[in-house]
Amino acid sequence: MITVPCSLKKMIATRTRPDTSGARRRANRGAVRNNLRVIPLGGLEEVGRNMTVFEYGKDIVIVDMGLQFPEEDMPGIDYIIPNSDYLRGKEKNIRGVIITHGHYDHIGAIPHLIPKLGNPPVFATELTRGIIMKRQEEYKNPITIKTVKKIDRLKLGIFDIEFFHVNHTIPDGVGVSIGTPVGTVIATGDFKFDHSPIGDAPADIAKIARIGSEGVLALLSDSTDSQTPGYSISESTIKKNLDEVLEHTSGRIIVATFSSLISRIQQLIQLSEKYGRKVAIDGYSMKTNVEIARTLGYLEVRKNTLIPINEVNDHPDSKVTIICTGAQGEDKAVLMRIVNNEHRFVKIHKNDTIVFSSSVVPGNERTVQGLKDGLYRRGARVIHNDMLDVHAGGHARQEDLKMMINLLRPKYLIPVHGHYYMRRLHGELAEQVGMSLENVFIGSNGQVIEFDYRGNGKLMDEKAPSSYVMVDGLGVGDIGQVVLRDRQVLAKDGMFTIVTIIDSKTKRVIGEPQVTSRGFIYVKENFDLVNATKKKVKDVVHNATSKDEKVNWAYVKDNIRDTVGQFLYSKTQRRPMVLPVVIEV
Amino acid sequence: MITVPCSLKKMIATRTRPDTSGARRRANRGAVRNNLRVIPLGGLEEVGRNMTVFEYGKDIVIVDMGLQFPEEDMPGIDYIIPNSDYLRGKEKNIRGVIITHGHYDHIGAIPHLIPKLGNPPVFATELTRGIIMKRQEEYKNPITIKTVKKIDRLKLGIFDIEFFHVNHTIPDGVGVSIGTPVGTVIATGDFKFDHSPIGDAPADIAKIARIGSEGVLALLSDSTDSQTPGYSISESTIKKNLDEVLEHTSGRIIVATFSSLISRIQQLIQLSEKYGRKVAIDGYSMKTNVEIARTLGYLEVRKNTLIPINEVNDHPDSKVTIICTGAQGEDKAVLMRIVNNEHRFVKIHKNDTIVFSSSVVPGNERTVQGLKDGLYRRGARVIHNDMLDVHAGGHARQEDLKMMINLLRPKYLIPVHGHYYMRRLHGELAEQVGMSLENVFIGSNGQVIEFDYRGNGKLMDEKAPSSYVMVDGLGVGDIGQVVLRDRQVLAKDGMFTIVTIIDSKTKRVIGEPQVTSRGFIYVKENFDLVNATKKKVKDVVHNATSKDEKVNWAYVKDNIRDTVGQFLYSKTQRRPMVLPVVIEV
Repeated sequence: MITVPCSLKKMIATRTRPDTSGARRRANRGAVRNNLRVIPLGGLEEVGRNMTVFEYGKDIVIVDMGLQFPEEDMPGIDYIIPNSDYLRGKEKNIRGVIITHGHYDHIGAIPHLIPKLGNPPVFATELTRGIIMKRQEEYKNPITIKTVKKIDRLKLGIFDIEFFHVNHTIPDGVGVSIGTPVGTVIATGDFKFDHSPIGDAPADIAKIARIGSEGVLALLSDSTDSQTPGYSISESTIKKNLDEVLEHTSGRIIVATFSSLISRIQQLIQLSEKYGRKVAIDGYSMKTNVEIARTLGYLEVRKNTLIPINEVNDHPDSKVTIICTGAQGEDKAVLMRIVNNEHRFVKIHKNDTIVFSSSVVPGNERTVQGLKDGLYRRGARVIHNDMLDVHAGGHARQEDLKMMINLLRPKYLIPVHGHYYMRRLHGELAEQVGMSLENVFIGSNGQVIEFDYRGNGKLMDEKAPSSYVMVDGLGVGDIGQVVLRDRQVLAKDGMFTIVTIIDSKTKRVIGEPQVTSRGFIYVKENFDLVNATKKKVKDVVHNATSKDEKVNWAYVKDNIRDTVGQFLYSKTQRRPMVLPVVIEV
Repeated sequence: MITVPCSLKKMIATRTRPDTSGARRRANRGAVRNNLRVIPLGGLEEVGRNMTVFEYGKDIVIVDMGLQFPEEDMPGIDYIIPNSDYLRGKEKNIRGVIITHGHYDHIGAIPHLIPKLGNPPVFATELTRGIIMKRQEEYKNPITIKTVKKIDRLKLGIFDIEFFHVNHTIPDGVGVSIGTPVGTVIATGDFKFDHSPIGDAPADIAKIARIGSEGVLALLSDSTDSQTPGYSISESTIKKNLDEVLEHTSGRIIVATFSSLISRIQQLIQLSEKYGRKVAIDGYSMKTNVEIARTLGYLEVRKNTLIPINEVNDHPDSKVTIICTGAQGEDKAVLMRIVNNEHRFVKIHKNDTIVFSSSVVPGNERTVQGLKDGLYRRGARVIHNDMLDVHAGGHARQEDLKMMINLLRPKYLIPVHGHYYMRRLHGELAEQVGMSLENVFIGSNGQVIEFDYRGNGKLMDEKAPSSYVMVDGLGVGDIGQVVLRDRQVLAKDGMFTIVTIIDSKTKRVIGEPQVTSRGFIYVKENFDLVNATKKKVKDVVHNATSKDEKVNWAYVKDNIRDTVGQFLYSKTQRRPMVLPVVIEV
C-alpha cells in the first residue's frame, strides 16, 4: 500500500493560492465533480475522542481514533469513543486510518472501531504502532498496522498522503497532509514546536513551509492550549530545571509524571546517570511504554541504570530516582499507594523530594491537593510546576499556533482538539495573522464541512451522528442516559426496595413487607422509620384491595412508590430511589 | 454580658515577652494553676468547618462554628460540621461563642451545634449577626446572638475578650484577642490587610500593634493563602479594573461572583451608577445578603439603581448590569440557568459581557470550563481572572502573614484554616521572620495544645474526637462510612435486586425470581442476560434445598449474591450491588 511520490512534480507546481488548485487538478483528472467532505466525529467539544473523516466520492481516509475520559456526571463509565454511525455502509470506502501519535485520545477507540469498520488498514509511525499493538493484546481481535516513516508518501484511494514531524510530549508524532482533488488539507495532530526537544528531532519546519508553499486549502489545527500566550516551553528548559533539582538534592528523588511522557522519562534517566543515581520505573502503563520505547530505540538508557522497584532500598537514598505514575492522584496509581503507605517497597523518607513533573488535568485539582498534603505530612519536600518549570505541556501556545498558520497559509482554518472557547480563541489568533473570521469554521462534533471544486468551503447544517458511545466493562454503547441518570440518583440518596407478597386469593399481604436499603440510611439504626414505612405499604395495599374490583397491580406499585417516597422525604429530606416489588402467590 | 475595660490598666502593663505575663497575672489572682487548652475541632485539615475551643479550668470560649462542603467521595452529603463530642458534659462551662465573620465556613454549624450545646450566648458583629439570624429562619430552634462592636471588650468567665477589625471579602470581620491567665491568645479569623478596601475600613493595624506590644502568647492565624507570594490585592485595584471593563463595554454586563462578596457588589453598584446602568441582583442567597447588608447600612445604593430581575429587558442593554450567583458552575445557580437558556428573564445576547469576578474553588474547574464554553457558544464575551484582575481573594498572602506575625510578635504560632501543607508553608514564613519552628504547632483536628502558667506551650498527644459529622437532609451524623461506600458502589455500577419466593412446604421456587435493576444495564434490552441470571438463582436454590437437611437461608442468600455477582461480572465486567431477597411463604 505504501507508494512513494506518484505526483511529486504536480504537487510542487507553483501556485500562490490554493483555491484554484483543486479545480485545476480536478480538471486534469476529468473526474466527477465531488465535494470534499470533512467530518470531525469527535474532538470538537472536548479534549479527547479525536477522529476526523475525510471523504471524497467513494474514498474515505480517517485521521485518529481516540477516546475521551468520562465527565463527572458519568459514574462508572470507563471512557467514551467516537460515534461511528456515519460510516455504517461505507466501510468498503475506507482506504486507511492514519494515527498521528500514540496517546489514548488519538488511539483509544482503535480496538472497538477498527473491527467494527471491517478492519481497514491502519498507518502509524513505529513508536505509535508499538503502543497500539501492546494495548491490542488485551483484545481478541487481531488488527493490522502498517509502519510508516515520516518521509513516506501514501496513495490512499484518491488521496495523496504525506507526513511531517511535529513535537509533542511523546516522540514520533506527525502531522498529515492530505492531497485531495479540491486542494490540500492538513491535520496537525497534537503538536508544539520545540527547537531543542529531548530524545526527539525538532518539528520539521522546513517541510511544513514547503507544504505551505504548495498551497493549502484547509488547516485542522490543535486548539488545546490556544488560551496560553507566548511560545511553548522547550523540553530543554525543563531539563535544565530538573538538573538543578537533582544537583541540589541529597535525598531520594521521586518524580511523578504522565506514563506516556517518554521525553521526560528520557531526561530524568540522563540526569540520573549524570548524578550517579539508579532509576526505578513504577506503574504498569509507564513500565509498558518504557519497554516499548526502549525496544524500538526511542529511549536511551545505559546498562545498569534501571533497577527493579523492589531493589530501591538496596541503594542509598542519594543514589536513587524513582519515576512513577499517579501525578493526577489516580486512585490505584503508584504515588497514591506510596502516600497511603500501601506501596510494598517505597515508603516516604523524611528527606525525599517529590517532583510533580506534570500539569493538573482539570477536575483533579482537589485530589492532587490531597496528595501533596499527604506528602508534606510525611515530611517530604514537594516541587511542582507553580514553583519551578518542571513540566512543559505538549500543545502549541498562541505564538506557535500563529506560526503554524503563517507557515501553511491555509485558505480555511478548522480549529480542532478542544472545547468551543479554545477553538474560538484559536480563530481569533488566525484573525490576528490576517485571516478572515469567515474562513474559520468553528462547528460542532459531526457537523459536515464541504469544499467544492473551486476550493470554496462551507460549514453545512448536515450533522453526522456524534452522540456519546460509552464503554463500561465489556459493554460498548449499551449505557444510555437512563442508566446514567439512575446511577446519579443512586449515588445521591441510595435506594430503598420494598417487597410485598400478596395472597392471590385473599388479596391480603402475607407476613411483613421486606425492606432492603443501601446508601440511604443505616437500616439497623432506623427500625422505627422502616416499620412505619412497612405500615404505609400495607395500608396502600389494603386500600387498593378492599374494594370489590379487580386489582390493578401496576397502579398499586406506583402508589407504593409515591407514598413511600413522600413519607421518607418528609422524615429525612432525602429522596432514595424507591423500588416496590409486588408479588402475588 | 458586655463589660467594658475591667483590666485595661493591667493589660497595657509594660512587658516585653509574653511568657512571664501569664504567670504574673495568675499569681496576682491566686487561682489554681490550670493549663490553657486550645483545641481546634475543625479547620486544620481542610478549608472549612472552623471551630476552636479555648478552655481554662471550668471556663470555655469557642471561636467560630463553621461547616465544610463535602469531598468528592461523599455523594449526596449536604455538608460536614465539626464534631462536638469533646464538649459533651461541659456545656455549662461554655461562656460564649464568638463568630469572626459571616461566611458559612465560620457560621454554618450554628443551627446544629448551638442548641446541642445548651444554647450558649453567641457574640457577633452586626452584619455577621444579620446573616446568622436570616439563616436561622430555616430552623425551628430560636437562638440568641448578642451584637458586639469592634471597640467592645467582653469578660467571658475568666477570659478577657477584645476585637480588632480585619479585612476579608465580607465587611465587619474581626480578629479576637483572648486574654487568659497564662497569656494572650489571638485568633485572626479569615483576614487580609487592605489599605483601600471598598465599603469597609482598613484593618485596624494600630490596634493589632497595640495588642502585640502588650505581649502575645500564641497566634492562631489564617493559612488559606499561605502559598501565594507577595501582598494581597486591594479591592481598589479590582475596582479600577472593573471600571475599565464598564467604561469600554457597550452591551450588557453580567457579573458572577460569590453571594456573600458584599464589597464586590458594592463596587459594581458604584460603577454602574457612574456609568448610568441599572443593577439587577439575582440568586436567592445573594439577594438575601444584599438585603441584610442594605438594611444594616453596609451597602450604599442610590434610589432607583436597583431593578428587579424581571425588568432587565425594559432597559437598553447598555444600561444594565446583572450581578448574580453561579460563578462556580453550581447546578441550579443563576449563571448556569442563563447558559442553559432556562432563565425566565435573562437570555444571552450577542454583545453581552460576562465577568467571572471570582476564583475557581478547587474541584470546580471542569464545570466552570463548561460554563465558559456555553457562554462563548452563545456569542458572549467572557472576562475572567486569568485575563485581568477582576477578583481578589480574601486571605492574607505571604507578606501579609509575615506582617501579622511581626505586629503581634507571638511566642507561639498555630497556623489554622487550611490543609497541612498550607499550614506548614505558614510555619516556614514564621521562620523567615525569626520564629523558631519549635514554636510553630502544626497539629491535626482535635489535637490539644496546652499552655502552662509559665507560658510554655506543648502540642499534646491527646486528641479530641474530630471525625466527620455529615449533614444529609434532616439527618445530622447518621450517615457513616457504610452508607457512603454503598453510594459509591451504587454510583459506579448500579444495583441488581433479585427476589425469590420459596414455598415453605416444598422448598421449591414459586414462579420466576423477579429482577429489579437500576444503573447497571437497561433490563429491557438484556432479556437473555436476565433470564440466564434467573436460572442461576433457581439452580442455587435447588441445590440448597434438594438435600434432606434444614435449609440455611442466610447461606442461600450469600450463595445467590456470589453466584449472580460472578455471573454478571463474567458477562459484563461490571460489579453491580447484588441484593438477593428470599422469602418463604
